Amino acid sequence: MNNFNFYSPTEFVFGKGRESDAGFYAKKYGGTKVLLHYGGGSAVRSGLLDRVKQSLTANGIPFCELGGVKPNPRDTLVYEGIELCRKEQIDMILAVGGGSTIDSSKAIAMGVPYAGDFWDFFSTGKQIERAIPVGTVLTIAAAGSEGSGDAVITKEADGLKRGTGSDLIRPRFSILNPELTCTLPAYQTACGATDIMAHVFERYFTNTTEVEITDRLCEAVLQTMIKETPRVIADPANYDARSNIMWAGTVAHTNIVGVGREQDWNSHGIEHELSALYDCAHGAGLAVIMPAWMTYVYKHDVMRFAQVAVRVWGCSMNFADPEATALEGISRFRKFLHEIGMPINFEELGAKESDIPLLVERFGIGDGKTGGFVHLSAADIAEIYRIAAHASL
Amino acid sequence: MNNFNFYSPTEFVFGKGRESDAGFYAKKYGGTKVLLHYGGGSAVRSGLLDRVKQSLTANGIPFCELGGVKPNPRDTLVYEGIELCRKEQIDMILAVGGGSTIDSSKAIAMGVPYAGDFWDFFSTGKQIERAIPVGTVLTIAAAGSEGSGDAVITKEADGLKRGTGSDLIRPRFSILNPELTCTLPAYQTACGATDIMAHVFERYFTNTTEVEITDRLCEAVLQTMIKETPRVIADPANYDARSNIMWAGTVAHTNIVGVGREQDWNSHGIEHELSALYDCAHGAGLAVIMPAWMTYVYKHDVMRFAQVAVRVWGCSMNFADPEATALEGISRFRKFLHEIGMPINFEELGAKESDIPLLVERFGIGDGKTGGFVHLSAADIAEIYRIAAHASL
Repeated sequence: MNNFNFYSPTEFVFGKGRESDAGFYAKKYGGTKVLLHYGGGSAVRSGLLDRVKQSLTANGIPFCELGGVKPNPRDTLVYEGIELCRKEQIDMILAVGGGSTIDSSKAIAMGVPYAGDFWDFFSTGKQIERAIPVGTVLTIAAAGSEGSGDAVITKEADGLKRGTGSDLIRPRFSILNPELTCTLPAYQTACGATDIMAHVFERYFTNTTEVEITDRLCEAVLQTMIKETPRVIADPANYDARSNIMWAGTVAHTNIVGVGREQDWNSHGIEHELSALYDCAHGAGLAVIMPAWMTYVYKHDVMRFAQVAVRVWGCSMNFADPEATALEGISRFRKFLHEIGMPINFEELGAKESDIPLLVERFGIGDGKTGGFVHLSAADIAEIYRIAAHASL
Repeated sequence: MNNFNFYSPTEFVFGKGRESDAGFYAKKYGGTKVLLHYGGGSAVRSGLLDRVKQSLTANGIPFCELGGVKPNPRDTLVYEGIELCRKEQIDMILAVGGGSTIDSSKAIAMGVPYAGDFWDFFSTGKQIERAIPVGTVLTIAAAGSEGSGDAVITKEADGLKRGTGSDLIRPRFSILNPELTCTLPAYQTACGATDIMAHVFERYFTNTTEVEITDRLCEAVLQTMIKETPRVIADPANYDARSNIMWAGTVAHTNIVGVGREQDWNSHGIEHELSALYDCAHGAGLAVIMPAWMTYVYKHDVMRFAQVAVRVWGCSMNFADPEATALEGISRFRKFLHEIGMPINFEELGAKESDIPLLVERFGIGDGKTGGFVHLSAADIAEIYRIAAHASL
């Protein structure tokens, strides 16, 4: 196990009706004037936004509003939010939505007190030194942004999708009411579940040895997702299954299942070029990329892939041929994704094989290599896209 | 799953040599004059205390010292610490030691700003409203106090052992260096491991349904302990195994594996009377009590006991007779405890069956019942002590 720091100071407020406590927690964590940031559509129609506003008002907290966050949130709205916050002397951002809204809120939060262009934090690796506090009311179990210090933003002008991270942008509080996810369409639900599982796999595949506790915690989240996801696809309003998925999604990404070990994250990077180019859902892109990545790299550590096949997917260990077990695990993952309604190849996703050179170019690795479990060159990444293009059950 | 809040704001600083950062973190979390609180013996002899002092001095932080914490920490030293902190205008307590030292530190921290007797928080259920910050340098993986909001103190005069809890006494930072545990005697190591496993079992046995994610997280910690504990008993200086146990011990008790469900904690309560009366190690008492409690209550939910037998202990499910599987799991637990050197009955612990009426009286349940998985009367508790008195492999 490697040395690490783990710091997850977010107060998680979980359960039925908890959005009515939004004002209480905004006040508790020092908000005196709040920017209510959201996407639009469902949060307005469902009455959620009104309930949050009532809670703020009941707690004597004035607010401004900025809606219009899109999936793969854009820098343009972030600039607008920063300007609004400065003009209105906002000192807390309350995100009402999913990962895109929360990431957009985090980007605004780091931009408000920063004299330069907030994009510096995404493009140059510049360290965040200050941010105004963020709170969240989560409406989809997926990105884990409600409990993480990460944010991903897409540049409108050229479609570049880049991430940054700091403990300073971890939400002060996150309200998680699984009821709010009971009306999500099956496709979005499955995209979220895929993202949650990907967050675990990116941490699971490591070259760090002697990490039994985090291996087991990773497996715990994966086993939960394998049990609960088909239940909510079949029965969307199942509160109990929604609850288990929602908390699993948060646990998957606070990093408690990933500390003390090298992590990978190449599948996320490779996927980001798909969702940036085609504006497809991140989870759907991951469903296509992650098993392709596994297929390409599993020989690097056959026994780790056999371990996950046995412990998570319930495969029988083939002691005479561990590679067969490793491959069976990957195959089970792809079948699982198909069964919950996810695309498993380029055609199903709406991507084009002829775009692979462009995707690789935009990945921007040049003559170098990525880090992670297996270090990948541009040629390796092209091959992973090709496997993804042609994948079948 | 039940509604819950989860809040674990402690910064965990994990790995080799991290105690040399004690001064940095004391400063980061606002300490300007620190009380160094410890037991004695090994922390002094090993040079640990000197390294921590050097780190404080290097960061310009003056400190006072108060050693002498005993296992099952006493109110008498807490009163002394409160007086010293007030006199010296201490604004942070740095615990260097295990659960006893940390609990003693928490009790001092809540007592310093309180006008009344700190014992009120333990005896009357009075809510803590303020506390000065606590940091820790942990020297044994066991109590989980480094990541919890709980403290247990024993009254010197009559041996009463009582607990309290508040988010306000969660440590601001906890330094976890597994190297510091590599010199622990096997018996103390095993007592710690037993305590860690007990913290999980107390959460695992619940009447709350639909808690797959926390069930799986509980199982992850237990599986880790079952793998790693025999390794450190056989090879005490094994850093990797010590690391997994240390992080498992923290994860076991921040409550991340126990949120959203009713919990039990009767085994802890029943054990506390043993360690209060005989001054035995808490973990050793739990090794005697917890399997006895399981034996007494398993019929309340045979399938839950079968689940842990199969998923954690690796038993084969006896589909014709699930009760046999449930009992096999309890039997494996007792054998495991015996193999790591723990007592499994009163004689091995140094307790007397003739004291059972006294133990029950001191438990203080009167004509009432406890809460938890199975509500227990004084007669039930007496029967659990009797099972514990006579247990064998």
